[in-house]
Amino acid sequence: MSLKTKEDTIVALATPPGMGAISVIRLSGPDSFRLIDTIFSSKEKVSSSEGYSIKYGKISDNDTILDDVLVSVFRAPNSYTGEDAVEISTHGSPFIAQRTIELLIKLGARIAEPGEFTKRAFLNNKIDLAQAEAVADIINSRTSVSLKGARNQLDGLLSARVSEIREKLVNVSALLELELDFSEEDIIFVKRDELNAKILLILKEIEEIISTYRFGKVTRDGVNLAIVGEPNVGKSSILNYILKESRAIVSSIPGTTRDIIREDISIDGFLFRLYDTAGIRVSNDELEREGILRSREALKNADIVLFVIDTKSGFSDEIYEEIKSLNPNVKVVKALNKIDLEYEKMKEIDFYVSAKNGNGMIELINGLKIAGLGEKIYTERDIIVSSLRHVDCLRLAVKNLQKAINTLESKLSAEFVASDIRAAENALRELIGDIAPDDILNDIFSRFCIGK
Amino acid sequence: MSLKTKEDTIVALATPPGMGAISVIRLSGPDSFRLIDTIFSSKEKVSSSEGYSIKYGKISDNDTILDDVLVSVFRAPNSYTGEDAVEISTHGSPFIAQRTIELLIKLGARIAEPGEFTKRAFLNNKIDLAQAEAVADIINSRTSVSLKGARNQLDGLLSARVSEIREKLVNVSALLELELDFSEEDIIFVKRDELNAKILLILKEIEEIISTYRFGKVTRDGVNLAIVGEPNVGKSSILNYILKESRAIVSSIPGTTRDIIREDISIDGFLFRLYDTAGIRVSNDELEREGILRSREALKNADIVLFVIDTKSGFSDEIYEEIKSLNPNVKVVKALNKIDLEYEKMKEIDFYVSAKNGNGMIELINGLKIAGLGEKIYTERDIIVSSLRHVDCLRLAVKNLQKAINTLESKLSAEFVASDIRAAENALRELIGDIAPDDILNDIFSRFCIGK
Repeated sequence: MSLKTKEDTIVALATPPGMGAISVIRLSGPDSFRLIDTIFSSKEKVSSSEGYSIKYGKISDNDTILDDVLVSVFRAPNSYTGEDAVEISTHGSPFIAQRTIELLIKLGARIAEPGEFTKRAFLNNKIDLAQAEAVADIINSRTSVSLKGARNQLDGLLSARVSEIREKLVNVSALLELELDFSEEDIIFVKRDELNAKILLILKEIEEIISTYRFGKVTRDGVNLAIVGEPNVGKSSILNYILKESRAIVSSIPGTTRDIIREDISIDGFLFRLYDTAGIRVSNDELEREGILRSREALKNADIVLFVIDTKSGFSDEIYEEIKSLNPNVKVVKALNKIDLEYEKMKEIDFYVSAKNGNGMIELINGLKIAGLGEKIYTERDIIVSSLRHVDCLRLAVKNLQKAINTLESKLSAEFVASDIRAAENALRELIGDIAPDDILNDIFSRFCIGK
Repeated sequence: MSLKTKEDTIVALATPPGMGAISVIRLSGPDSFRLIDTIFSSKEKVSSSEGYSIKYGKISDNDTILDDVLVSVFRAPNSYTGEDAVEISTHGSPFIAQRTIELLIKLGARIAEPGEFTKRAFLNNKIDLAQAEAVADIINSRTSVSLKGARNQLDGLLSARVSEIREKLVNVSALLELELDFSEEDIIFVKRDELNAKILLILKEIEEIISTYRFGKVTRDGVNLAIVGEPNVGKSSILNYILKESRAIVSSIPGTTRDIIREDISIDGFLFRLYDTAGIRVSNDELEREGILRSREALKNADIVLFVIDTKSGFSDEIYEEIKSLNPNVKVVKALNKIDLEYEKMKEIDFYVSAKNGNGMIELINGLKIAGLGEKIYTERDIIVSSLRHVDCLRLAVKNLQKAINTLESKLSAEFVASDIRAAENALRELIGDIAPDDILNDIFSRFCIGK
């Protein structure tokens, strides 16, 4: 996918494939109006229509009427892409949509690549890169929290904050440039402490954003929670209680084997993916082994593990070690179930619950939430970073600023400091897409669906 | 579903469910503008916007922004339904669409029933009933021919023709009324022949439309073609050749057992559903028996059967009788395969082919087409009836007109003739929906998808 494709006119189905009441086809590019006027007859030509107006008429393939449609007209730069564009709303037959797209392609339009409409919006400065990425997140959002996070980013909160920090770096650079011009040792040395303080301050600001990443990632992607324990300790009862309590099952995905169950639930708007694992210890039974492999896979991908025991099973160091060896950094929440029966407190246990009568369950759910999200809950008005690419850019900026501080301390020439700061600044510019190599752009937009 | 629901405001997702670039939500009814203005903020209020204009703005749930959207404004009566209506184009997240619909419902909108938007278009005299039914056919159309048939109907060709014939019946009725007023025997008798001739002419016109039903049904629903024959006569080779030749596989549906394959192809734009049956004779093998049951089912539903033999298998009267006992009225096309080898002509055979080198295959495909569609191919400019409901109405009209002729011949009072003609006229009015009982309307619209 080249960036030099702005000149041609692209077309794609913008609505999900399949049968519905209507389908919408997007057409964008300099030839949009000419192409649509060739196949669409209405009282007024699209090319002489105002932007943000709707025309009713018929799409024809030569003499054959294909469908009566509504065409929404958008004139550059006031469109999603910033180009001349139209949206054709047809009757919801996949066949009609396909034929209409074929007609436009025959006339010279090109089928759009994934994310190409949004990419053009970015290239035409309608949105910056972080905002473009938020569009994909918005489409994929499945809970109120993930939507808010993506909206926050689309509204430009992260971009604005990063630009602000970048400005500060530019000021530092300017100071340095000034000093380089008068590269007398005494001038330089006077300012080193001040410089150092300025950079440290910026560093702290960036690290503050980075610290929201765990929370941001969770709002965007949800928390993978694996439930582990020996047979009959009540894993399924606990799972069922949580499902009932959260009263917001997002979806239930039947396991690919009988041995693993996945349920997506929303706890206070946060997506939790619950994996009920059958067992993780090696078995000789062929069928069981398959389930164990899947359980281990779920454990490896888990953000948190709920390890359930009862008084009969006791706390198994063996299983605990197994969990830690599969996923060394995972947070393990340990719960003792069946406190409706006789039980004793144990030093390893975090929560004492009864899935039967519900005792301790609210505390457990809250504990899982904190384990998944961290103690600090940010609001939609906070600056939150949720994308690995963004946090990588920020981390690169931090790394270069730390280098700058070291360079300052080792009393090397100001030129080296300037170079470190420039590298940090570039990392921030890459985040918002001020500078972004083609392959990064291509990678980002290829993750979009076609038509967006 | 009551017909008294025009006063409230209905809402539904109009695009197919699932992930896409955009989703469109339809809102129609007297409260549409007030409701959308409550959750949508833009430069200008929708309620003070012109029809056929688009507004850009944000949908909010109290203080939380849900999405930035485009709202298309339609003012009564210039909308699909004939009511005030808007279409909200959101980012294509199912979650956003669902939340937006929930917001509108909380404000007083009601989720639309299947086909309710089109039903309102009908109730507001935007379209007649046959046209409303065509909308559903258009959405379901999968080939150019089925689309043309539905368009023809949506453009009102059938309705116009039926109205024209109805007018003629009204004139006949008027004549009769006149005679009833002067019910002197001599006046009546003078006109009986003339009346008879007029009714016969109308009868012929209606029968002409009925005669298009086979073709119309095929254009709408396609032809079910079952391929039958003993093992190794080359059924699959013939199927594959047809698939290759037609070069227009609509879709390939894997068999639910290994024993039946279905392929949808388009021959000259007509949909053919090809069923490759494994066998139809009883077997003792448990697994095979399942396949045989399915093959028999396919045969029962077939419009035409392609019965394949080769010189080795010979013509099996047993299989032929089996076909006829399962589906007495089915057209059986008999083909002898492998004419690349030595063979003799047989009186039972219609086509001699070689799926290996293609000899005779074009003739066979054409033969199947004629068997499926009939000799007469109508064009999109002909009046064609494709719906069972319509042909039932037409047949009822014919039946009553025949009764009228009998009544005339038996010299009963003109009142009886008038009653028969009124019944015929009502049947035609029911077709276009001038009079249509609630349950017929409900039945028709319940077959639509929600959002249309």
